[in-house]
Amino acid sequence: MHDLKHGAVHAAQHAMQPAAPYTARADARPAHTYRAAAPAPPGRGRGHVAGGDVRRRGVARGRRAAAEPGGGRGRSGLSGVAAMMNADLRRERAAATFQPELLTHILDGGAERTRRRKEIEALVINDPDFQHEDLNFLSRSQRYEQAIRKSSLMVMKLREYGIADPEEIYWFKSFVHRGRPEPLDLHLGMFLPTLLTQATPEQQDRFFMPAWNLEIIGTYAQTEMGHGTHLRGLETTATYDPATQEFILNSPTVTSIKWWPGGLGKTSNHAIVLAQLYTQGQCKGLHAFIVPIRQLGTHEPLPGITVGDIGPKFGYDEMDNGYLKMDNFRIPRENMLMKYAQVEPDGTYVKPVSDKLTYGTMVFIRSLIVGDSARSLSRACTIAIRYSAVRHQSELKPGAPEPQILDYQTQQYKLFPLLATAYAFHFVGAYIKDTYHRISGDIHEGDLSELPELHALTAGLKAFTSWTANAGIEECRMACGGHGYSRCSGIPDIYVTFTPSCTYEGENTVMMLQTARFLVKSYNQVSSGQRVTGMVSYLNDLSRQRVQPQHVAGRTETVRINDPVSLVEAYKARAARLVEAAAKNLQAELNHRKSKEDAWNRTSVDLVRASEAHCHYVIVKLFTAKLSEVSNAAVCAVLTELCLLYALYGISKNAGDFLQAGILTDAQITQVNQRVKELLAVIRPNAVALVDSFDFHDVHLGSVLGRYDGNVYENMFEWAKKSPLNKTEVHESFHKHLKPMQSKL
Amino acid sequence: MHDLKHGAVHAAQHAMQPAAPYTARADARPAHTYRAAAPAPPGRGRGHVAGGDVRRRGVARGRRAAAEPGGGRGRSGLSGVAAMMNADLRRERAAATFQPELLTHILDGGAERTRRRKEIEALVINDPDFQHEDLNFLSRSQRYEQAIRKSSLMVMKLREYGIADPEEIYWFKSFVHRGRPEPLDLHLGMFLPTLLTQATPEQQDRFFMPAWNLEIIGTYAQTEMGHGTHLRGLETTATYDPATQEFILNSPTVTSIKWWPGGLGKTSNHAIVLAQLYTQGQCKGLHAFIVPIRQLGTHEPLPGITVGDIGPKFGYDEMDNGYLKMDNFRIPRENMLMKYAQVEPDGTYVKPVSDKLTYGTMVFIRSLIVGDSARSLSRACTIAIRYSAVRHQSELKPGAPEPQILDYQTQQYKLFPLLATAYAFHFVGAYIKDTYHRISGDIHEGDLSELPELHALTAGLKAFTSWTANAGIEECRMACGGHGYSRCSGIPDIYVTFTPSCTYEGENTVMMLQTARFLVKSYNQVSSGQRVTGMVSYLNDLSRQRVQPQHVAGRTETVRINDPVSLVEAYKARAARLVEAAAKNLQAELNHRKSKEDAWNRTSVDLVRASEAHCHYVIVKLFTAKLSEVSNAAVCAVLTELCLLYALYGISKNAGDFLQAGILTDAQITQVNQRVKELLAVIRPNAVALVDSFDFHDVHLGSVLGRYDGNVYENMFEWAKKSPLNKTEVHESFHKHLKPMQSKL
Repeated sequence: MHDLKHGAVHAAQHAMQPAAPYTARADARPAHTYRAAAPAPPGRGRGHVAGGDVRRRGVARGRRAAAEPGGGRGRSGLSGVAAMMNADLRRERAAATFQPELLTHILDGGAERTRRRKEIEALVINDPDFQHEDLNFLSRSQRYEQAIRKSSLMVMKLREYGIADPEEIYWFKSFVHRGRPEPLDLHLGMFLPTLLTQATPEQQDRFFMPAWNLEIIGTYAQTEMGHGTHLRGLETTATYDPATQEFILNSPTVTSIKWWPGGLGKTSNHAIVLAQLYTQGQCKGLHAFIVPIRQLGTHEPLPGITVGDIGPKFGYDEMDNGYLKMDNFRIPRENMLMKYAQVEPDGTYVKPVSDKLTYGTMVFIRSLIVGDSARSLSRACTIAIRYSAVRHQSELKPGAPEPQILDYQTQQYKLFPLLATAYAFHFVGAYIKDTYHRISGDIHEGDLSELPELHALTAGLKAFTSWTANAGIEECRMACGGHGYSRCSGIPDIYVTFTPSCTYEGENTVMMLQTARFLVKSYNQVSSGQRVTGMVSYLNDLSRQRVQPQHVAGRTETVRINDPVSLVEAYKARAARLVEAAAKNLQAELNHRKSKEDAWNRTSVDLVRASEAHCHYVIVKLFTAKLSEVSNAAVCAVLTELCLLYALYGISKNAGDFLQAGILTDAQITQVNQRVKELLAVIRPNAVALVDSFDFHDVHLGSVLGRYDGNVYENMFEWAKKSPLNKTEVHESFHKHLKPMQSKL
Repeated sequence: MHDLKHGAVHAAQHAMQPAAPYTARADARPAHTYRAAAPAPPGRGRGHVAGGDVRRRGVARGRRAAAEPGGGRGRSGLSGVAAMMNADLRRERAAATFQPELLTHILDGGAERTRRRKEIEALVINDPDFQHEDLNFLSRSQRYEQAIRKSSLMVMKLREYGIADPEEIYWFKSFVHRGRPEPLDLHLGMFLPTLLTQATPEQQDRFFMPAWNLEIIGTYAQTEMGHGTHLRGLETTATYDPATQEFILNSPTVTSIKWWPGGLGKTSNHAIVLAQLYTQGQCKGLHAFIVPIRQLGTHEPLPGITVGDIGPKFGYDEMDNGYLKMDNFRIPRENMLMKYAQVEPDGTYVKPVSDKLTYGTMVFIRSLIVGDSARSLSRACTIAIRYSAVRHQSELKPGAPEPQILDYQTQQYKLFPLLATAYAFHFVGAYIKDTYHRISGDIHEGDLSELPELHALTAGLKAFTSWTANAGIEECRMACGGHGYSRCSGIPDIYVTFTPSCTYEGENTVMMLQTARFLVKSYNQVSSGQRVTGMVSYLNDLSRQRVQPQHVAGRTETVRINDPVSLVEAYKARAARLVEAAAKNLQAELNHRKSKEDAWNRTSVDLVRASEAHCHYVIVKLFTAKLSEVSNAAVCAVLTELCLLYALYGISKNAGDFLQAGILTDAQITQVNQRVKELLAVIRPNAVALVDSFDFHDVHLGSVLGRYDGNVYENMFEWAKKSPLNKTEVHESFHKHLKPMQSKL
């Protein structure tokens, strides 16, 4: 978070990862302590949940439906909503060359994990308590209320079912809220974990159990109206008064008002407030304080506290992102989180030991955003590809029936590279998470040697994947034509829910520049004769190449455009070239100007390009590496096609880089463009099966266009009839405005 | 519309152009007839409006505010909303090297038009009848009602003020509805004009005056749930019954339900319905019928008619896009629009004379979308650039105050190319409109010779500009960091209002392929020895080049990257190369396959690329041409910088094309990248003045971040306080859900 700069959505930032930070932040306290606080009631543990009363859905459901006879294109009449599967989708599924379940298992990380995920999914989806009207038909206040209702239920049911594993909590929450943020996200994802990691034992005794039982509901208030998380810029003050042994919390300016924290507006009665600590006349920098903001019991704001909702946003309608203004509000000395730094009763400040663990937390949270990018793009692709198989439009051949729009090359060109991208990002997200877990043992023991590279890489990948997914979701929406614009398509919701991840947890451009800093540092190490390791080790080759200036000509003949491994080399060469170019431009600026900072700023466009090329290389490399892990030949074949498409499409779109560096020839670029078109046709028969493999339940997908059964049109009509504007045949504005006007004209 | 294919938003399609089609569609009827229907009341004509009671705002307002002393960054305290101008913006404006008003006049097409526009703007903005709460705080039903209220008022006031010029009506409407669509758009923009052009005199007598006086409110129902405007695919039938001399209108399937028409859901009592005409047992293709759908007076749907709202969308909350299902609904024979085709009482069908005028209408409407692209992107740029001048964040130099985020090169790189693009699109939009008007005289006299090229060009430019603006608006939003995500930034609204233009009036990919068809045809003409004229005349050079194979090497030395005219040549060469490549690929596919259609489909990715390159060339060419028309040296200088940035940025982003064709060398591409960065710094001091020149009134801009006075933070706080969730201190969900849960845990 130290890195979140350009006016970021701080509040939103943790909304997607409620359970996850437990893992990261609970480091300082043994996991069993945390779980012990919520003992599963007798007989209601996992064993019970796994019992026979849980119906399997998803793939099994698909199977059943596929076996049903008949169905049609949905044009056969108006009589009710057909329960059969759309004939086009049935044909598509029958023609697939691989078993989608096998790919689902790979994505989930094993068949057992798929089973457990679906079990938890069924727990939520079959529970009538979690049903409600389509949120698109509700006002924001009603949506907030539904979210509060479901979150309250969720907390109770998680305990009832004894679900305590962070990943399982994540699944449960995700199904309950259908991938949307909810008002307790920051309580669960930031307030509780921060207590665990930064509170003293005495403070934990005082706050943890009330917070665990939601008597205390908290949020995490860092970002201010005029400041992202450039920590030195924050203006809120906490001034220690030794006379009363209190801190005086104050918002001295409009710009210092805490702004954005999720759950702050209406839900929370406490906040962990980040403020500049003043004691004995000196500023000691940013520290965290537990600040009560509403009266327990009545929930009324306390005197000296101004708190409220920051108003409607692009999305996040269920979330009460809030503001908090404190007017010399006093809290006891004991409410400063004092596990690391302390203020003694007389005002003496005791320095903290350095807390490098947040470094690891950032890696973890950003790895989750890579996963979110994959999932959000997968959802949009599922909708757009299924709908493109159902939708018939225009004509390819005069007089012939209207073809499925998925048969248009331009439609394939829009959707299949995004499909390939979604798969790539899934594997990258899993890789980072695994790597983090692999080295987190070392982190616990204080060995942070592998962390800097992972940290730099994750920053860039967070930016690369969220930008790409963000644009891709909108491409999917527009590929659905007019109906994509309807809320019933589900894609507008996916977009507005996902897009903040380009800003929170580190604004993307800032992230790219962090990665660049690592790349330039690595380049400089190589230049000074050292060797670098890990993902940047290709930079070692640069010094070798300087000895052999003919490398460029030599390399061009070696790229084999049908071999992913060879394409990894091409991406590697491109990254090396762009890192070198950026580093040289930076040096040239340094030679011309005095200030390091100016030179950095004047090279930043090049630095971002270098980071992008590095990330692109890493993604192609990881996707390619994944192929060798896939044992099923049919699945491996289709993943290889996707991997090739991903790599070749990227070359086609960035042809200038590959040409300029002499990595590929003009003729090869022409071949690449041709091969991309061929791959579209190759992937076409498996397109529907490839999105089925993502295995999103219809309830979770939330799309009439993307329904598993493909019965789009009947259900669109049913959905529309429920629109609030259809509650009356004649809208009141007819009598209030139109009729009076008619009489006047 | 014949070209709108992939499931397009037909209804939304005309929403932005209510007045404009009058011009195009009123061709068949002298303009004075149309105006005569609404005689200006005595003494309330234009003379009155132009009188002294209209206050000037905008530039004058800017002047005044700039002259005021003091102001600040908005951090000086909480005491009220400052009326002064933000100090940063004041400095920015003082440092500009040119007078924004002069550029405003160029954009408006002359100082007199600027004056008149502002006069009409003031009429609306100073009128208390048009005030209302921020729409973001209202439910959809309330928003619809506000729109109906304002539209009713608007119709009355337009007559009161005697405003009848289509462009002035457009301005008035745009200020009333602040750039949003409204429920009467299709009545004004499609229903009335269609009556004028396709109704017989008898039908006009029967329908026009009631419709003019809004006793009849109509819409235009073409698109069906399962069909865009691929006309042969439409399923609605109109079967003639000679026994009763009636047409029986029927929606035989779910997919045949009319879907999307604006104003259909709740507002209209009539619709012009497009249906397949059956008479004497034969289908005669698509024809238009006037269908009453609601009872005059009560507004209740008629028996046999099912009509309603299609439900919430991404945007267009004020618009009741609707559905219409007809169950063997009978209308008199005389309700078929019979100016061209007729059905005689006995059922005899009389063929229409071919109606090529719609061709011209499409050109006109698409030229308006180019203008909309420019305006929408300009609005987003205005907000993002002003806010980037006000926002301070992070640090460039350790210990120094936080810089304006506009000083970050990465921020400039995001925003200035978009600023240049907005200017480019303004000039392109004006060019097409002018060209259309220039040749519309010929069109009236039946000379359509210039129309095919303009039609092909406009299709591509509609797609190119709307795609670019669409992505650019979102870039602007994200460049505003977290606050861009708030509805108070105004950018989410700009985006959701604009984005349908990628789909309506011809889905963009389909549009690009239309342009490609013209390009390939022109290429084939050149190949067969003919010469082509107009914007495609560069294709003539291709045959010459085949005689001189060394052209590539010869050309590379001639591009001068600081000379717009030379860059036009580079874009021309790129377009020529990509058209040739696409045409050759198409030929290769034809040589391998039997079907023309298959070959076309298998080349369509290349064809779209060719069209994009052609459009890009046209835009650079028109922008460059505009420079020579600008007499003021200071204005010309800054426009030249923008033009260069536009052209060089495009080369940088498409470097592969220029390298592959040998138009630019590796070294030149590196120079281009460097020059782009230099231009960012050159444009930086004029950035605020360049968005001021767009001259959007704050009310029209609808953005707290983009306010002219820059007092962002105080106003953001004021705005948030009005959020509906802040109507009570304690939300009811606390008592209903949170408190009960606390007692259970």
